Amino acid sequence: MPAPRVIFSTGDHALVRAWAGDLLERMRRHGGGPDGSVTRLVYTPEWCGAMAELEDWMTVAGLEVRVDAVGSRFGRLAGSLADTVLTGSHVDTVPRGGAFDGAMGIAVAACAVRWLREMVGRPRLTLEVLANCEEESSRFATGFWGSRAMLGLIRPDEPDWIRDASGVSIGQAMWACGLDPALIPTARRSDLVAFIEPHVEQGPELEQAGLPIGVVERIVGVRQLRITMDGVAGHAGTLPMADRRDALAGAAEVVLAVEAAAREAGPPAVATVGVLEVEPGGFNQVPGRARFSVDLRHDDPEALAALEERIRRAVDRIAAGRGLAVALERPFAQAPVDMDPRLVETIERVCREAGIPWRRMPSHAGHDAQVLAGACPVAMIFSPSRGGLSHRPDEHTDLDDVARAVRVLVGTLQQIAY
Amino acid sequence: MPAPRVIFSTGDHALVRAWAGDLLERMRRHGGGPDGSVTRLVYTPEWCGAMAELEDWMTVAGLEVRVDAVGSRFGRLAGSLADTVLTGSHVDTVPRGGAFDGAMGIAVAACAVRWLREMVGRPRLTLEVLANCEEESSRFATGFWGSRAMLGLIRPDEPDWIRDASGVSIGQAMWACGLDPALIPTARRSDLVAFIEPHVEQGPELEQAGLPIGVVERIVGVRQLRITMDGVAGHAGTLPMADRRDALAGAAEVVLAVEAAAREAGPPAVATVGVLEVEPGGFNQVPGRARFSVDLRHDDPEALAALEERIRRAVDRIAAGRGLAVALERPFAQAPVDMDPRLVETIERVCREAGIPWRRMPSHAGHDAQVLAGACPVAMIFSPSRGGLSHRPDEHTDLDDVARAVRVLVGTLQQIAY
Repeated sequence: MPAPRVIFSTGDHALVRAWAGDLLERMRRHGGGPDGSVTRLVYTPEWCGAMAELEDWMTVAGLEVRVDAVGSRFGRLAGSLADTVLTGSHVDTVPRGGAFDGAMGIAVAACAVRWLREMVGRPRLTLEVLANCEEESSRFATGFWGSRAMLGLIRPDEPDWIRDASGVSIGQAMWACGLDPALIPTARRSDLVAFIEPHVEQGPELEQAGLPIGVVERIVGVRQLRITMDGVAGHAGTLPMADRRDALAGAAEVVLAVEAAAREAGPPAVATVGVLEVEPGGFNQVPGRARFSVDLRHDDPEALAALEERIRRAVDRIAAGRGLAVALERPFAQAPVDMDPRLVETIERVCREAGIPWRRMPSHAGHDAQVLAGACPVAMIFSPSRGGLSHRPDEHTDLDDVARAVRVLVGTLQQIAY
Repeated sequence: MPAPRVIFSTGDHALVRAWAGDLLERMRRHGGGPDGSVTRLVYTPEWCGAMAELEDWMTVAGLEVRVDAVGSRFGRLAGSLADTVLTGSHVDTVPRGGAFDGAMGIAVAACAVRWLREMVGRPRLTLEVLANCEEESSRFATGFWGSRAMLGLIRPDEPDWIRDASGVSIGQAMWACGLDPALIPTARRSDLVAFIEPHVEQGPELEQAGLPIGVVERIVGVRQLRITMDGVAGHAGTLPMADRRDALAGAAEVVLAVEAAAREAGPPAVATVGVLEVEPGGFNQVPGRARFSVDLRHDDPEALAALEERIRRAVDRIAAGRGLAVALERPFAQAPVDMDPRLVETIERVCREAGIPWRRMPSHAGHDAQVLAGACPVAMIFSPSRGGLSHRPDEHTDLDDVARAVRVLVGTLQQIAY
C-alpha cells in the first residue's frame, strides 16, 4: 500500500531553499577562502570542521548520526525495514575548488530527508543521508575512499601505502582524525537497496538548454595514464641542440597529440594533461625528465580503448624519435557505468508530475554512484552549473535549482521508500 | 725587469694535482650527496661550510684571507703594488649539480697562487684567489651576486626584494650568515687590473677534439624570458574539447616553437625551456595557467635578437590562436662579452711554451668574467668536461687536466704579475 502522496508547495520550495542555502554557507566556512575558493582535503582540520558541522545540522534535523570506519557520516531516518536507501555525496573538494561540488549533493539529500521526516514521517525503507569522506583524489592518489570502504574494496595495504605530497600515509591521516585504519572492513554495507546522488553537473549542458534537472543515464568511462619520459639533462648553454634529448620537448609533443586525439575522436571524447613536472627544473637546465598525467573519458567503452591505444602509440613514436625512455602506468581505469533504468524512470516520472523540465544525459565526471553501483541500483540527479564551471572558486548553482533538486529527490524517495 | 721564469716540472704537476684533488674532495663534502651530486646554494649551511673549508686551506697555504660584504672570500698574496690580479670562480652550485662547476676554478686558482708563493715568492702585482659567493641564480633569481657587488651594481632595494622559493629574501639569507646587507657598497673594488677565471667547459668541444685547454675568446650573449599563459581552468571530464582554452596545450606549442627556432638558426644558437609549471595542477583539471622560462644564447648579438623576436612572434601567434592571455617579461639580457685580446695572447703563449695543446673557443655559458669585464681586462681558461656533461652529479674533469690548467695559470700570472 503506497503512502499518500504529500504535496510539495511553493512554501516548501522556499523552506528547503533556505535550509539548503544555510547549510551550504555553513559548509563553505570550512576551507573557504576570501576569493570564494574552498579547499577541504580529506582528513584535514577543514574536513573535520565540515563533518562536525554536518553532524550538528543532521542532529538538529532529527536524524540519527553515525560515523563509519573511514569517517563518512550517515544521518539516519529509520524505517520499518532495515533495508536502506542512501542519498548524498562527498565532503572533500579539489584544491581551490568551489562550494558546490559534493556539498550541494549532501545539502539536497539532507534537506529532502529532513523535509520527509517533518512532513511525511516514518518511511517503510530506512533513509540515510551520506556525507562521504573522500571522492576527489585531491590529497591522496586514491579516489572513492568512502564508497570503496562501503563495498569492502580497500586492500589492507592501502592505508600505509597511499601517501600525500608530504609523505603522510592515508592511515596516518586517519589516525589524526581519531579513525583506526584497522577497522576499515567494518565500513562494509550489506543493507543498501538504492543510492541516489544529487550533484552539480560541472558542465554547460543544462544551463545552455535552460533546464533545471538532468537525469543521468550513464557515467562515462575514465582511464588515467601516468607517463615519465627520460632524456638527458644538461646545461642550457653548453649542450648543443643537435646533441639534446630534451624530455620536456618530448612531453610537449605528447600534450599536443593527446589534444589532437580527443578532438579527432569527437564529442563526448575528452583528453587532458593536467599534471606536468619537469626535472631538474632550473631555467638554465635542459630538462632530463618530464612526468605527466593523461586523463581520457568517453561513454563508449570501445571508443575509450581506441583513444588510449592511439595515445600510447603516439607516446612510443615521439619517444623513439627523440631517444627518450618511457615509463607508462595506468593507475586508474573505470568502464562506463549505467544508472539503474527503473530509478531513472522513477525520477523522470517525478519531474513530469512536478512540472519540472529535465533531460537525460551522461555524466562526464566520475562519481561515487559508479562505485556504489557494485552494491545496489544507483541514480544521479544533476543541477545546472553556472557557465559550466566546476573545480573552481566561482563554481555556482542557483539556490532555486538546488530547491528543485530537493523537490525531485523528495518525490523519488516518496515513491521508493514509503 | 721581468722576474726569472721558474720551471714547472713533472714533480710540480704531481704536486698541484694532489693539492687540487684534495681541495676538490674537501669542498665536495659541503653539499655532496651519496650519488655524487653537490647542492650548495648561496647562504645555506653547506655554502658556509665550504667557505670555512676554503678559508682554512688558503690560510695554511700562506694566503691572507678576507671576506667582503656579500661573503665572497679572497686569499691574498700581497705584491709590491696594491694593483690586484684576481683569479678564481664561484662556490655555489645548481641544485643536484656536480663537484667541478665553480669549485674547479677556485681549486686551480688557489693551487696556482700557492705554488707561486712557495716557488717564486712575492709578486710585483698583488694576487688574489677569488671564492665568489654566488653565480648560478640557483637559489635566488639573481645571478652574479658576488661579481655585481665588486662592481657596485647591486641596487639598494635588491636585498629585500629578491626572494627564494620559500620567500626568504637574499638580505635575510645574508644575515643568517652574519653578513649585513647595508654594507654591500663596501664590496666595490677599484684596485683590479685583471681577472682570470679557470672553469670547466661544461660542453663537449675540448673532449671531442682531445685538447686539455680552451682559451675563451668570447662569452655568448644570453636572453631569458619568463612567460605566463592564462586560459580557463576546468574539469577534465565536463569541459568539452571545443570549449577549452588550455594553457598547457599553448605552452606545449611554445616549447616546440622554441626548439624549432634554435635548430633552424643553426649552431651556436641554443634555446631551452627549463622551467614549466602548471596550475591548478590536478590530474583531472584542465590547466588554466602555465608559467615557463625560455633561455636563448648566441655569440652574435644580431642573431640573438632575431631569435628572441622569432620566439616572441610565435608566442603571440599561439596565444591568439587559442584565446590565451600572455604576460612576457625579460628578466635577464646579457650581450656577448669579448675577453681581453692581450690576456688571450698571453695565455696562448704560455700554452705554446709549455707544450700544452689548446684551442680558442667561445663560452656558451655565462660566467663571472662577463661581469668583471666591466671593471678590468678579463680572460678564461677552460678545462674539458667528461662527456660534455655539466650541472649534473656525474660532471667530471680529469685531475691531470686540472693540473694542466694550474700550470697554464701559473705561467700566465708569472707573465703579468711578476
